[in-house]
Amino acid sequence: MRYAIVGTGAIGGYYGAMLARAGHDVSFLLHSDYDHVSRNGLRVSSCNGDFTLPDVKAFRSTADMEPADVVLVCLKTTNNHLLKELLPPLLHQHSIVILIQNGIGPEPDLQAALPEAHIAAGLAFICSAKTGPGEINHQAYGHINIGNYSCPDKALLDKVITDMRDSGIKAAEVDYNEARWKKAVWNMPFNGMTVALDARTDQLLTFPATRSLIREQMMEVAGAAQALGVKGVDEAFVDKMIADTLVMPPYLPSMKLDYDNHRPMEIEYLYTRPIAEARKAGFEMPRLAMLESQLRFLQTRREQL
Amino acid sequence: MRYAIVGTGAIGGYYGAMLARAGHDVSFLLHSDYDHVSRNGLRVSSCNGDFTLPDVKAFRSTADMEPADVVLVCLKTTNNHLLKELLPPLLHQHSIVILIQNGIGPEPDLQAALPEAHIAAGLAFICSAKTGPGEINHQAYGHINIGNYSCPDKALLDKVITDMRDSGIKAAEVDYNEARWKKAVWNMPFNGMTVALDARTDQLLTFPATRSLIREQMMEVAGAAQALGVKGVDEAFVDKMIADTLVMPPYLPSMKLDYDNHRPMEIEYLYTRPIAEARKAGFEMPRLAMLESQLRFLQTRREQL
Repeated sequence: MRYAIVGTGAIGGYYGAMLARAGHDVSFLLHSDYDHVSRNGLRVSSCNGDFTLPDVKAFRSTADMEPADVVLVCLKTTNNHLLKELLPPLLHQHSIVILIQNGIGPEPDLQAALPEAHIAAGLAFICSAKTGPGEINHQAYGHINIGNYSCPDKALLDKVITDMRDSGIKAAEVDYNEARWKKAVWNMPFNGMTVALDARTDQLLTFPATRSLIREQMMEVAGAAQALGVKGVDEAFVDKMIADTLVMPPYLPSMKLDYDNHRPMEIEYLYTRPIAEARKAGFEMPRLAMLESQLRFLQTRREQL
Repeated sequence: MRYAIVGTGAIGGYYGAMLARAGHDVSFLLHSDYDHVSRNGLRVSSCNGDFTLPDVKAFRSTADMEPADVVLVCLKTTNNHLLKELLPPLLHQHSIVILIQNGIGPEPDLQAALPEAHIAAGLAFICSAKTGPGEINHQAYGHINIGNYSCPDKALLDKVITDMRDSGIKAAEVDYNEARWKKAVWNMPFNGMTVALDARTDQLLTFPATRSLIREQMMEVAGAAQALGVKGVDEAFVDKMIADTLVMPPYLPSMKLDYDNHRPMEIEYLYTRPIAEARKAGFEMPRLAMLESQLRFLQTRREQL
């Protein structure tokens, strides 16, 4: 199996390096880090043990890469408009594209852009950061759930999961819709609220007013999932997310890091799309729609500075 | 008619000085400015012409003041717990207490504390600020609407309005509930949103996302008023508030000034009470309830710093 990593950052760098270290054939698409990584390889500081990958198949453009059996897309969704151009050189007739991204809706959008593509979702549960050129710091967790969106060959997806497990990555297959909406239960409240109130997850849960609000927002996500016929996203799951977060160390979600570092926020797939999907099913998410408006205000004001 | 001003700040200082300048008997309750004002009087810089009031009947405590026919309460509602002690020395059998304050609910709360009191609401439409000890800067507008809450003698209220008009204050009698809820249509969205997003009124209306949100929040207030049987607070009024604000100069509402100057915010009467009143009538205000939670978070975090 030949793997291609599109977006060699905190997520793609980690999973790609883990696969390559185990001996898999992995090619990496790089942008600003290309020169450094071609010369020096990738370095992973991990809570499970540090390692270096001295020889990396690094590329500047997908046009120079061979077609792959499995393409792991690890870009921020704010770059997804590029996929229609980036992916075709990497795809043969049976390639699988796995979108390891946040939010609701990237798969149908990619399917519309590339109707023949075989697509799956990857939900990564990992604390990881890019700390320098070719340097990945993997702090905690690391498991990945794969949900099939449009891959006709289930055996191929099973093979990917086996490869990941053999490479030291905890991986499992899950229901596509359930996985995306379950992740949204946590992502939608915490990503935006940490930005809007310049707060950490633990602060939002310490103060009674915001703790109630976070729970109400999670219930909006659960309500949307139920209106869309997605199973398993219920009040018990919401309570589990609150309980799990209460025992997490203070945490800044990816959108908060994006905002603080003046990168565009993933508002479209984290808010606009799920809110629109729910509305089509007759379900309103007023608190999360308000949060979306606040985030769009903050992002636009910053762009105009 | 003898007047007493409780709270000689931007509002009380202005209206009290206007009445005193016209020759009415006005006593002022002062706190930190007492020494300065007893010696130097009040100075009003006004868009309608500056004036000074050299001799001011200044008091440090209502216990030293004579009962008044009309008491204008111009404290922030965050101090309303003091009224039960402050007001009794000022009241005779026929005194009127006019609460020139923001929000929904200060009158019923005062009535519960002082069951015999004759109470009215004063809705001030004025841009005014206290710029130093005994110094009031009146920038724009200035009219006041009076709504009768529990005054049995309507003639006495008419007399107050006549006195105000004779003193150069535009004054009118309005329906109590309609006046309070109409003011809430503007106050609830703009006071909290300028704090939550550190923004001016004009910025909130310039960006499409927040302009829609402000309108939805105004519609929540209109919906609450309608659920409570209050007339005249409809979509047309909401559109008028948006249109009026679009032609206003950039503005920071009082809650934003309170927050920026590390004073407590009037969350209770501007948010908690109207939201609770609406809920009792079966109407939810999810966006404004979310804003209340955000404001409580910001206020509590600041208090803990």
